[in-house]
Formats: sequence, C-alpha cells, structure tokens
Amino acid sequence: MYDVPLSLEALVNSENTRIGLVLFPRLTQLDLTGPAEVFGRMPGAEVHLLWKTLDPVPSDRGLSILPTTTFNDCPRLDVICVPGGPGQVELMDDDVTLQFLRRIALGCSLITSVCTGSLVLGAAGLLTGFRATCHWSSIDQLSLLGAEPVHERVVRDRNRITGAGVTSGIDFALTLLAHLSGDQVAQEVQLQMEYDPHPPFESGSPRTAPPALIEATRVKISSFVERRRIATERAAARLANFPGSMPTGRKRSTSGPCQSAASLE
Amino acid sequence: MYDVPLSLEALVNSENTRIGLVLFPRLTQLDLTGPAEVFGRMPGAEVHLLWKTLDPVPSDRGLSILPTTTFNDCPRLDVICVPGGPGQVELMDDDVTLQFLRRIALGCSLITSVCTGSLVLGAAGLLTGFRATCHWSSIDQLSLLGAEPVHERVVRDRNRITGAGVTSGIDFALTLLAHLSGDQVAQEVQLQMEYDPHPPFESGSPRTAPPALIEATRVKISSFVERRRIATERAAARLANFPGSMPTGRKRSTSGPCQSAASLE
Repeated sequence: MYDVPLSLEALVNSENTRIGLVLFPRLTQLDLTGPAEVFGRMPGAEVHLLWKTLDPVPSDRGLSILPTTTFNDCPRLDVICVPGGPGQVELMDDDVTLQFLRRIALGCSLITSVCTGSLVLGAAGLLTGFRATCHWSSIDQLSLLGAEPVHERVVRDRNRITGAGVTSGIDFALTLLAHLSGDQVAQEVQLQMEYDPHPPFESGSPRTAPPALIEATRVKISSFVERRRIATERAAARLANFPGSMPTGRKRSTSGPCQSAASLE
Repeated sequence: MYDVPLSLEALVNSENTRIGLVLFPRLTQLDLTGPAEVFGRMPGAEVHLLWKTLDPVPSDRGLSILPTTTFNDCPRLDVICVPGGPGQVELMDDDVTLQFLRRIALGCSLITSVCTGSLVLGAAGLLTGFRATCHWSSIDQLSLLGAEPVHERVVRDRNRITGAGVTSGIDFALTLLAHLSGDQVAQEVQLQMEYDPHPPFESGSPRTAPPALIEATRVKISSFVERRRIATERAAARLANFPGSMPTGRKRSTSGPCQSAASLE
C-alpha cells in the first residue's frame, strides 16, 4: 500500500502536472496559500484544493477557503501536499483522510507537506523510513511515526519533500517548482512574487530567536503540543498494528545540525 | 474627505484593534493571506475580510476566499489594507470600492496596502503627497497618482504603510504589528510562523535577478502593465477633477536607491 514511486523522472518530463493541496478545518491557511501561490504560477500546472466536500473550509484564524475538488472526485495526482495547523491533530485520527492520502499517494510522483502536515503524512504511514521536517515546535514527534526529523527548512528524501513551519511553505514550493520545471521557471516565479525577504527581526527560528522569547512561547503552547503528542502516539500505535505499514526507507542518513527540540509553536 | 488622522498614538494604546483587508475578484491571494496570517495572531485584533457581498471571491489563480463583512456592514476600522493583483485594474475604476475606501479611511489610524493595492489607494486619492511602494513592475505608476515611489520593501510615511510585491506583505505585516503591539509581540509571531526565509535563488528583486530573466518577464507582461497604466492615467484624470482631492503631503523626501523602473511583474 505504501509502495509509491520513488523517482521524479516521469514527472519532470510530463506536460501537465496535477498538484493537490489538502484543505481541512482549522488548518493554518498560510501553510497552504504560500505554496498555492507558487504552484498557481507553474506553467501547465493544474492545482486542486481538496476536501471531503465543496463547502468552505475555515482555517484556524477565521479565513475560509473553498475546495475545488472532493476526495471522491480527485483525479490521479502528480503531487500531493498536506499543510499543517491545529486541525491536524484531529486529522491524524481521521480515517477518511488517511485512506485518501494512501490511495492518492500510489499515483503520485511527489508526496509532500508543509509544517505539521508532515505528521499527517506520518500518520498515514507515508513517511516511515524517510527524513523529514516539520514546524520546529513539534518536529521531534516525527520519530514516533518512524520518520527521521531533520532540522532544515526544506528536506528532500527521494520523492518526499517536506517544509518546516508555516512560511517555509514558500521556500518549499519554489524548491519543488525548480525540481519540476527547472531553475529558470522557479527564478521567474520568485521574481514575479518579489520574494526578496527582509524579515524585520532575527526571531524566525529557535536558532536565532532570543531564548526568553522561545521559552515564553513554549509555555504558551505546551498544553496544545502535548495534546498533539498524544494524538501522534495514537497514530503510531495504529500504524504498528497495520499490516504492511512501517516499511523501512532505503536510505537513512544522519540529520543535519539539531536545535534543542523544545516543544514550541 | 482625505483629511485622515496622521498619528499612530491612539491606536497603539487601544485594546481592540480592528483591521480590514479588502477582497476583490482576481486579487493575488498571497498579497492578502500573508498579512492575514500575521494579523490573525495579533492579540486583541479583530480581522475583517471585506467585499461588497459575502459571496466567495475568486483570486487570480483559482483559490477563492470568503469575505466576513460587507462594505455596508463594516464597522469603524483602525487599519485598512488593500492587496493587489490583476483585478486591481478594474478596481481603480470601481466607484463603490473607491468611495468605501475614502469613507472608511476617515476613521482609520493606518491606511495601508500590499503590492499594486497602493495604486488603488492612490486612485482613491489616499496616497497623494505620500511616499509609497508597489510591485516592482508598476511602482513608477504611483507618481501618476501624486505619490512618490520609493523602491523599498516596506515604506512608512506618517500613517501610510505600503508593502512592495506579493511576499512583501509578510514583512509589511510584521512591521505593522511591531508598530501596533511592540517588537516583542512581532518577534513572537515571527517565531510562530517560522519566518526565517531561505529563498532558493537570488532572483526575488530586479536588484538581484539575472538581467535576461528580468527582460523575459518584462516582455511577457508588458501588455498587461500597459493596460494597468491606462487605468492609472484614467484614475489620475478623475482625481484631478475631484474637488478637494490631491492634497499635498506635509513631508516629501527623496526616494531611496532606485532600480531601473522596468515594467515587469
């Protein structure tokens, strides 16, 4: 069931690329809208916003987005991408979504996520044995699902590409676009989007943020991250009991330089 | 009509901040969704997504967003923000929207935009005499509307704050958040959003992109940018005939280092 193709070659040469982004209640909208902006500018791309129904899906902070395609009507995809956000905790227990992901992944050349969406891929058994990243507050939970946490902004391991927290989705999507359409197209899209970032502070990562700020944030979200951990453990237990799950990836390497894996978000 | 407050003081000390982001057909969704993600994390903020009706508004690349509040039902706002995108050309001719912006701006402490949204503010007479920025392809058009183009990513002139193209909205919104809630809150939101960008290429600005890439992009969008220019000239003509419009700003200074103002997008 998890024996999905591991090569990008077929995709790179195809004329029409179908990309599906999963919507779900209480997603963090920028996890999805950043990559959607990039993919929408890809020549020959067909972008599907996927959910169980076509009703508007409310994000975690009130902005609602319309799906374009239901799980049932979803065509074969080349790329599947799962964003994250608080609703990801419930999604890890949602059998309809997990089964859809397993089914659609069979035809995908690339299986991808942004932020805590990687925990959903993991809950579906799609990251077992792969190196992956996640929002910095919860990246340690990947190992419960058989994935190897890598503290980088964009991580590619064979045909899995994962992005770290929220805004990482833009770097992730441009990286993916370069794989699919070549560097020149990705550079042009970066120019169109005037992606020449100048963050006002050096606080966007636990590597750079002041320790007191990290600690204050950690305290603020600790109970939520703990609730996420319990859901991740539940998903891991189900995976362990699932025949054919938990395959070992063919390549494992040591991760990059690690940060203190505080439970922050 | 354009005599809006020029001080941030009242706003900085208020407990509840009402922020309105304008939706319109064929907006560039990331112009809006980037800032919306930041504002949604601001303590005490009330974020309104504004349009004429509550029907879903389609962006330029197929992602549709639901308004939360109509122009008619919009309460007094502290901050108004206008994003850009191709539909901005029609919006500059849309009297209902321009009148709404003029009316709501009267109560706002901050009048803001992202990308070509600054041309809409300009068409409403709200940037006359102010330094401002815009998407790099069309920033020169600001001067037709009495604004002074400044080639920077985020430009503040008194109570106007404008962001450059598309992804600039994230830098813009964090800068605005720091003004409203202080540096510590903005730093925490930057950490939550893991905004530690690592663009895959050095091509996000005409300052850094390869000249051949800039030229190819310019050619591709030249007819659209020309259509925008004609609409901007029409808006400028209306402004000149509008009694009480085109006030001179109190401060004018020379702009920052200018790029070749190619018509690129």
